[in-house]
Amino acid sequence: MRDVAIVGVGQTPVNEYWDRGLRSLSGEAIGLAMADANMESVDALYVGNGYGASVSSQAHIGALIADFAGLAGIEAFSFEAGDASGAAALRSGYLAVASGLVDSVLVLGVEKLTDTVAAERVRARNVSIDADYETIHGASITALAAMLMRRYMHEYGLDLSAFEGFSLNAHHNGSLNPNAMYRNRLKAGAFAKAPMISDPVSLFDSAPDADGAAAVILTSTERALDRVAKPIQIVGSAAATDIFALHDRKDPLFLAAVALSTQKAFQQADLTPDAVDLFELHDAYTILAALSLEAAGYAERGTGWQLATNGGEAIALTGKLPLSTWGGLKSRGNPAGATGVYQAVEATLQLRGEAGANQVANAQVALIQNLGGLASTAITHLLQVI
Amino acid sequence: MRDVAIVGVGQTPVNEYWDRGLRSLSGEAIGLAMADANMESVDALYVGNGYGASVSSQAHIGALIADFAGLAGIEAFSFEAGDASGAAALRSGYLAVASGLVDSVLVLGVEKLTDTVAAERVRARNVSIDADYETIHGASITALAAMLMRRYMHEYGLDLSAFEGFSLNAHHNGSLNPNAMYRNRLKAGAFAKAPMISDPVSLFDSAPDADGAAAVILTSTERALDRVAKPIQIVGSAAATDIFALHDRKDPLFLAAVALSTQKAFQQADLTPDAVDLFELHDAYTILAALSLEAAGYAERGTGWQLATNGGEAIALTGKLPLSTWGGLKSRGNPAGATGVYQAVEATLQLRGEAGANQVANAQVALIQNLGGLASTAITHLLQVI
Repeated sequence: MRDVAIVGVGQTPVNEYWDRGLRSLSGEAIGLAMADANMESVDALYVGNGYGASVSSQAHIGALIADFAGLAGIEAFSFEAGDASGAAALRSGYLAVASGLVDSVLVLGVEKLTDTVAAERVRARNVSIDADYETIHGASITALAAMLMRRYMHEYGLDLSAFEGFSLNAHHNGSLNPNAMYRNRLKAGAFAKAPMISDPVSLFDSAPDADGAAAVILTSTERALDRVAKPIQIVGSAAATDIFALHDRKDPLFLAAVALSTQKAFQQADLTPDAVDLFELHDAYTILAALSLEAAGYAERGTGWQLATNGGEAIALTGKLPLSTWGGLKSRGNPAGATGVYQAVEATLQLRGEAGANQVANAQVALIQNLGGLASTAITHLLQVI
Repeated sequence: MRDVAIVGVGQTPVNEYWDRGLRSLSGEAIGLAMADANMESVDALYVGNGYGASVSSQAHIGALIADFAGLAGIEAFSFEAGDASGAAALRSGYLAVASGLVDSVLVLGVEKLTDTVAAERVRARNVSIDADYETIHGASITALAAMLMRRYMHEYGLDLSAFEGFSLNAHHNGSLNPNAMYRNRLKAGAFAKAPMISDPVSLFDSAPDADGAAAVILTSTERALDRVAKPIQIVGSAAATDIFALHDRKDPLFLAAVALSTQKAFQQADLTPDAVDLFELHDAYTILAALSLEAAGYAERGTGWQLATNGGEAIALTGKLPLSTWGGLKSRGNPAGATGVYQAVEATLQLRGEAGANQVANAQVALIQNLGGLASTAITHLLQVI
């Protein structure tokens, strides 16, 4: 294998775009990434998309977007693992370049979720949980997250306030990010009064469904060093799965796929968790943030929430483990299949020192992690300054 | 990169399975492939599936099937490029093993298309053409194929009988294949009297939508040689795209993605088209067979149909270029996102000399080609006896 680096990044602001489709959002992110890398073409386009077929009646998005971006002819197809679709595309782009057989891959994450009515969107998004044993009984992803959160609170004797710090931190960081969907900081007391979505998951525990597109361009590190001033190397890449349906897991409060993929990524990178300067985790729900910290080795079982106490001091941009440095899924927004690529874009900007108001001082190593379903898929990457 | 070989294959019979879902079909194919390779586990499961979300309200099939197959924990996700989804998974599995970072990949193609009413199925399958500029005007994949066929007939002064040989050959070969969906040979005169689906595409010009699952296990050639008696090497692998919508192509009768991916695959393999002993092409429609032969370099423009004259003598199992040796999409059936993996299974059996009544004598090199949409995606592999 050869080493692989990121040489260009691009992103649209995350938002509800009722007037823009998959083409328009993708074209913007691709154009920005190409300009950033000072490239005019690539050898392949790998697209992460989770819900094109179920929301927009449009799949086959690889060839669709290759054509729209003026790249018809190149290799292009799509990757899907629910909300981890973006990271699946990134993982395969990494492997393709590492193989030596593909010189450059544009990894695009794109999603349109909002241009549909709420009930229809729940149905469309449910394709990433179990149709035969979950959806059929009326479950939704949020309802399952609520059961997970309730169980955690019961097991460790916690109330809702235990999760507040994750949301405060995300909204603080998102308020500084011009591409974030919700740039409001949470007022004192707002979290406690938030309306319930699916008890105990409140509005401020759950990330908003959103639209957006993000792109990163990968090439060999050798070529990257010739091409751009600050290539960012992918030093660890791993994907893992868990028992699919939540009710089948022996220990639902342990995210086995998170643990496995994190360990593998650190092993490949020959790094330990304390080398990480920032962690873009999959905070689609505050409970997933707490459980991810535990499974990834940053907290003992039942104590992940403690990292977010004292108003989230430890996880702030100036804390010992900055989380969701651009707002995370919670405040930047969750454009599902694009989210994993947003994480890669954001981590790259941090490691380049180009994060502006969101900058983590002297960031050298970033951990990014993208989950599908209730963490039945976890895909983890480690990025490092060369 | 390292060389990559196929060490195990498995397939379910292709059929309408109103009583079996994605899990059941996948489990059977995976079990057969594992037994064939004498393996009990793999490092990754790459799934080709085109229409799970739109037909079965089920995506995220990588983690779903990894769990069902007793493989929870391993890397798993899905690949999508319309009916070329299976070959997209194969291509990425090949790159993953070639990189040296993944030791074994089980490439699964699985599709459930038939357990829905016809109008709903057309809508579900249309996700692989252009929602904004084709579907919205009432087009379907078959209607677009009909326009392509009509144009070809007009351009070269042909009538319907020009396409008969492709169908006769496919049904002859399918009649010998116990896994084929339609094992009937066509009677004399049947083709000419076939009911129209979308004029001029008749019942015998178009492949049936079907259900099924197929699996191949990939590992490094070095490891394969230790493991099985007859590993089959992947010597060429390439994917390409064309202008997405048929009406936007300057020269719709030239399948540019087919030409490009075929050339790249031959270049990588250092082989020429005359080295090929059998060609599993994407005969979803007879017009695609004719045009694929032209774009792949086996016939001049406007003459692809001539290879199928004289009852298909040249393309028979004993001909100079055997096509669709197990019945192809037409007679074996077209389980969409699984079709590309069926092609890999069938070619492997041919190259091992295990094709029984369907055997092409002394087959050493096989060309397999899987198309998505109206060939807006083409993915081509060359397999060779080591």
